[in-house]
Amino acid sequence: MDFFHSEPIQIRFNDVDPLGHVNNAVFFSYFDIGRFNYFHEVLGLYNKENTEGVIIASTKADFRKELGLFNNVEVVTRTTRIGNKSFDILQQIRDITTKDIFCESKTVMVGFDFKNRQTIPILESWKKAIIEHDGEVEIRSIM
Amino acid sequence: MDFFHSEPIQIRFNDVDPLGHVNNAVFFSYFDIGRFNYFHEVLGLYNKENTEGVIIASTKADFRKELGLFNNVEVVTRTTRIGNKSFDILQQIRDITTKDIFCESKTVMVGFDFKNRQTIPILESWKKAIIEHDGEVEIRSIM
Amino acid sequence: MDFFHSEPIQIRFNDVDPLGHVNNAVFFSYFDIGRFNYFHEVLGLYNKENTEGVIIASTKADFRKELGLFNNVEVVTRTTRIGNKSFDILQQIRDITTKDIFCESKTVMVGFDFKNRQTIPILESWKKAIIEHDGEVEIRSIM
Amino acid sequence: MDFFHSEPIQIRFNDVDPLGHVNNAVFFSYFDIGRFNYFHEVLGLYNKENTEGVIIASTKADFRKELGLFNNVEVVTRTTRIGNKSFDILQQIRDITTKDIFCESKTVMVGFDFKNRQTIPILESWKKAIIEHDGEVEIRSIM
Repeated sequence: MDFFHSEPIQIRFNDVDPLGHVNNAVFFSYFDIGRFNYFHEVLGLYNKENTEGVIIASTKADFRKELGLFNNVEVVTRTTRIGNKSFDILQQIRDITTKDIFCESKTVMVGFDFKNRQTIPILESWKKAIIEHDGEVEIRSIM
Repeated sequence: MDFFHSEPIQIRFNDVDPLGHVNNAVFFSYFDIGRFNYFHEVLGLYNKENTEGVIIASTKADFRKELGLFNNVEVVTRTTRIGNKSFDILQQIRDITTKDIFCESKTVMVGFDFKNRQTIPILESWKKAIIEHDGEVEIRSIM
Repeated sequence: MDFFHSEPIQIRFNDVDPLGHVNNAVFFSYFDIGRFNYFHEVLGLYNKENTEGVIIASTKADFRKELGLFNNVEVVTRTTRIGNKSFDILQQIRDITTKDIFCESKTVMVGFDFKNRQTIPILESWKKAIIEHDGEVEIRSIM
Repeated sequence: MDFFHSEPIQIRFNDVDPLGHVNNAVFFSYFDIGRFNYFHEVLGLYNKENTEGVIIASTKADFRKELGLFNNVEVVTRTTRIGNKSFDILQQIRDITTKDIFCESKTVMVGFDFKNRQTIPILESWKKAIIEHDGEVEIRSIM
């Protein structure tokens, strides 16, 4: 699958833990960077007037290679499935040049009303914007 | 399933992100706290002389409830499956009193030689120690 | 000087950086834990109805000893000076048993109105509560 | 004073705390990014063969403006004083375009032998490299 959204990652000194590689929890901050920018650009989220947004229902990550302070990596982000109540995000942390994958994740997002702090269906405007940006996305009407 | 290992979690001010709840990536630091103590106590890992230890192959988390600064939570940790090359850890972040689950994760661990930086089989001594600690653990000879 | 507020610190695995000790930036998260609890207990801050609170104007830390994963430390917190526009917080990260100091910090706090996002004078009710809690505090009418 | 070393900062979603601005402790991670690159480029530190390096003796930061997710900032780094046992680093987090300062810090570094875990004098080769890079640096023979 092709990715149409990429952000280079700035690795910080204390991202690396006593085992000498980027700590597993820090990878999820890297995925956050990718999703934040993707949702901001594609869905227009994180503006002050937004009371509707998305939160994470679940996430899974496969760690393929150790990542160190001197690697040059990017996070790439796309949607792979849209349902009525949730959608799936696929992301990779990969070498900017070789595209070697260090970590791959799949995250299920659900709509959320931050004013009333409860889940909401996926907005039709979001579905449209995602399909326009990412092209071939599986559409499923049931979560 | 019963858990025989628990650690209370100290939530930090900047664990909470702009959405007003503990950030998803921070939950993985909480799971780290649990695994670190579990592996230290049950397997004797993280002593200076250890060159053999474990690293994460993959991890999955389900986020069930929003977690805030004033919640009192613990991380509980146990092994659910042991194979020759990997074993599975089940963890929950849950309310200390009500046992309500905020987040549940499953993590696949693999043996690792930190001197030669390559994967190794699960030591027989580890298998024995885990079964002694957690009781009913599924044993599978193939990963 | 005596401290009347103490919080034990839970050190996390990725608090330790590639140099093998707790990263300098993480100490400031530990100081945050102390101040958050101190301000919550002594001044009643961080409740939902508060629009007035405090922010940091400046902070200074002296690093005296390397801190590792297996040290048992507490953060102790007190006020040393109260002025009209600011007050000073003294904090230490120290061994729970021996009271050996790993790091000591001094932080200047200023009043802040989070609704209008501007600084405000120190409330008289805060001054009174601090003196009642910490006893001998230097009072200065000019910042 | 002029700065001859600059790194743009990638702000992460969970750098922002419940008060709606970048958390004070996170600024010290930003200063770490600057120092790490500065010491790597100017002094050749953080290569695998190094057993001699530097650690922080003390650090002070003044917080001037609230920093948010959408600000574009850089960290600039330079040495202002070199002694026999320590040297001083001046850093700023500032707007890339307007050069408005959000936070300024001064950090005292001491030489450290990571093999024997004890302080060492500042190497003559370091002094020379710093002066070559930053120009007008105050030289003092006593710490």
